[in-house]
Amino acid sequence: MRAHRLIVQKFGGSSVANPERLKRVAQRVVETKQGGRDVVVVVSALGDTTDELLELARQISDDPPERELDMLMATGEQVSVALLAMAIEQLGEAAISFTGAQVGIRTDGVHTKARLIDINARRILEELGKGKIVIVAGFQGVNIAQDITTLGRGGSDLTAVALASALGAAVCEIFTDVEGIFTADPRLVPAARKLKSISYDEMLEMASLGAQVMQARSIFVAKRFRVPIHVRSSFSSKEGTMITDLAKAMEDIVVSGVTVQKDEAKVTMRDVPDKPGMAARLFRELAVAETNVDMIVQNVSREGATDVSFTVLKSDLPTTLKVTRQVAQRIGAGAVTTDEGIAKVSIVGIGMRSHSGVAAKMFEAMAEERINIEMISTSEIKISCVIRKINAERAMRVIHQAFGLHKRT
Amino acid sequence: MRAHRLIVQKFGGSSVANPERLKRVAQRVVETKQGGRDVVVVVSALGDTTDELLELARQISDDPPERELDMLMATGEQVSVALLAMAIEQLGEAAISFTGAQVGIRTDGVHTKARLIDINARRILEELGKGKIVIVAGFQGVNIAQDITTLGRGGSDLTAVALASALGAAVCEIFTDVEGIFTADPRLVPAARKLKSISYDEMLEMASLGAQVMQARSIFVAKRFRVPIHVRSSFSSKEGTMITDLAKAMEDIVVSGVTVQKDEAKVTMRDVPDKPGMAARLFRELAVAETNVDMIVQNVSREGATDVSFTVLKSDLPTTLKVTRQVAQRIGAGAVTTDEGIAKVSIVGIGMRSHSGVAAKMFEAMAEERINIEMISTSEIKISCVIRKINAERAMRVIHQAFGLHKRT
Repeated sequence: MRAHRLIVQKFGGSSVANPERLKRVAQRVVETKQGGRDVVVVVSALGDTTDELLELARQISDDPPERELDMLMATGEQVSVALLAMAIEQLGEAAISFTGAQVGIRTDGVHTKARLIDINARRILEELGKGKIVIVAGFQGVNIAQDITTLGRGGSDLTAVALASALGAAVCEIFTDVEGIFTADPRLVPAARKLKSISYDEMLEMASLGAQVMQARSIFVAKRFRVPIHVRSSFSSKEGTMITDLAKAMEDIVVSGVTVQKDEAKVTMRDVPDKPGMAARLFRELAVAETNVDMIVQNVSREGATDVSFTVLKSDLPTTLKVTRQVAQRIGAGAVTTDEGIAKVSIVGIGMRSHSGVAAKMFEAMAEERINIEMISTSEIKISCVIRKINAERAMRVIHQAFGLHKRT
Repeated sequence: MRAHRLIVQKFGGSSVANPERLKRVAQRVVETKQGGRDVVVVVSALGDTTDELLELARQISDDPPERELDMLMATGEQVSVALLAMAIEQLGEAAISFTGAQVGIRTDGVHTKARLIDINARRILEELGKGKIVIVAGFQGVNIAQDITTLGRGGSDLTAVALASALGAAVCEIFTDVEGIFTADPRLVPAARKLKSISYDEMLEMASLGAQVMQARSIFVAKRFRVPIHVRSSFSSKEGTMITDLAKAMEDIVVSGVTVQKDEAKVTMRDVPDKPGMAARLFRELAVAETNVDMIVQNVSREGATDVSFTVLKSDLPTTLKVTRQVAQRIGAGAVTTDEGIAKVSIVGIGMRSHSGVAAKMFEAMAEERINIEMISTSEIKISCVIRKINAERAMRVIHQAFGLHKRT
């Protein structure tokens, strides 16, 4: 059930980078309130606060306990909510700020990357009932011992989506420094267009493929609890992009966007004995070492041996190499090589599953530009190709063009 | 009942002005712990944090709601406790930090100057039981609605004293930038000596007379719950001054110290009709206006009229003048004049009550220097004289000398 007057608005760090911007946020919140809505606001820490606090911790300790890091970092959002409440009161509307603990945002005990358990909406509903604008610190909660926890990357978005779900809000507005979700990164593909709407599933793929607007975990929660999300700009009043359950409306749409990811490296293990269980052994050991393997390609066997290539995040490369070399030695495989000169270009679209020829069109667009495809992986709503990094932007543009993304309304 | 292994240590803002100093505090705490004590530490906000937060609030609003100010200011101590816990862990001891809310420091609902109601020591005792050093944010608590409150001036000392009482600590150590309580301000009286000990009552008088080391409210609580306080320097390991119940040991001591206060002004209402209730009317109205009147002198009546003089804090002068002039007009008194060129010199000593001649010795010392005394007030353990401000330091030195404060051991 949705409370149709209730709206949750989330403003990130760049929207509240300084007192002037914070006042503009207050203005925007007050306008929403005066437009007849009940408003719950979620804010992140001011601009560089998070970095400044981390730097303080670094000056004290090279390995600070995570519980204490959370205690420290949580002050950033507490400062923001207090200041925003002041700014709103200054504009003549009643406001009240809360920490995560005060509104019962309960998490598990994993400090610095806690998972939400639940939210006790009582105090918020009480204050909304008094006509107040309620401001909640993003990114933070408490565990069962009442110790402060933080939710990790994208934590404030998650707070906003979870609050919207717990309160049954009509919509969760995510204010950001871009105008919405685009068919491709406009800095790379000038013809990119803003999407009016996108499905949770497509957005999940876009998020995991590197579109920086929202983290996958928040979209996952929004999808699960069917919270409509409106991604829009803090700096304009234009409509942004609705992320929602689009099953019906979307049947005619094939591809929603093109993304690129350059933070992966390719690892190849040569001359793997062509016996059952060899690849499984490698990937089980990599999983134990908590390395996220993305794409995997196994070449055709030749003379009883094969090459296995896969991609991992560059940040996981040292661990990956160590594990892979150990396994190579044990199973009697050949050399292990790495290649950081790759990029992954993907297309995402909910309509793909029922349309044939989508992959072919993508490959042809690149072939015409003589861009070689080194690896391919597909899912129901996504096709990804690994190519030379140097070709990445050109590939995006020709694919964007090939699917007519520049002209769809 | 006192837990003889337990010690509460409080470090103020200047002791934790930067990461380097904070590490030294950690070192000191660890030494105490390794000396076989259980340690609870109370810290204030880092150096200028409080001013920086107030400045942020000022940029947002010229009249910020006090609830939100408390929400904002409380982050200062939260940062300190987290960093101190990190610094202690870095030295190899286990530490855990808490906000006021987390250890159940309950206050009334008066934001920015809340009064303590009680402390729930359970969580602290639990963590001490695990061998941890417990670090508690000073200055803050929560009201019954779980809203964050702050305790106002001297709030961190109050937190420390109240914790020492609730936990039955053997002693509450207040670390500061002076070495203890002196017979007079050493910057004004070079012969001033550090006192080995002083009674709560004397310290209360010293505090209210402007000795800046501790606020009267903390000493009041210490006296009531018989918490021994040790005021000492954060920058040396020398013993400081014990504030305690000294009834027996102190019988031979007459005067403990000399203080000066320059933040008061004298107000005189001339030609007050010499009828009952005239002075009462004035001081009742000043009380209603929340002006704290300190000393009052009423001259002898001449021809049916009298002059009334009193002192107030200079900061209260505008209100005081307004009220006094209104009253003067209504009761048919004469002109109201003010004099900001005064200072109040006082001697404090628990032995005074049983020794005669103390006042006479103080007056004679000033008379020999031709220092005119304009007003006098006495209590059981204090004698104060208003003199010209220009004579204040000279008066302190001769009084200090007259009572032999420079040579007592």
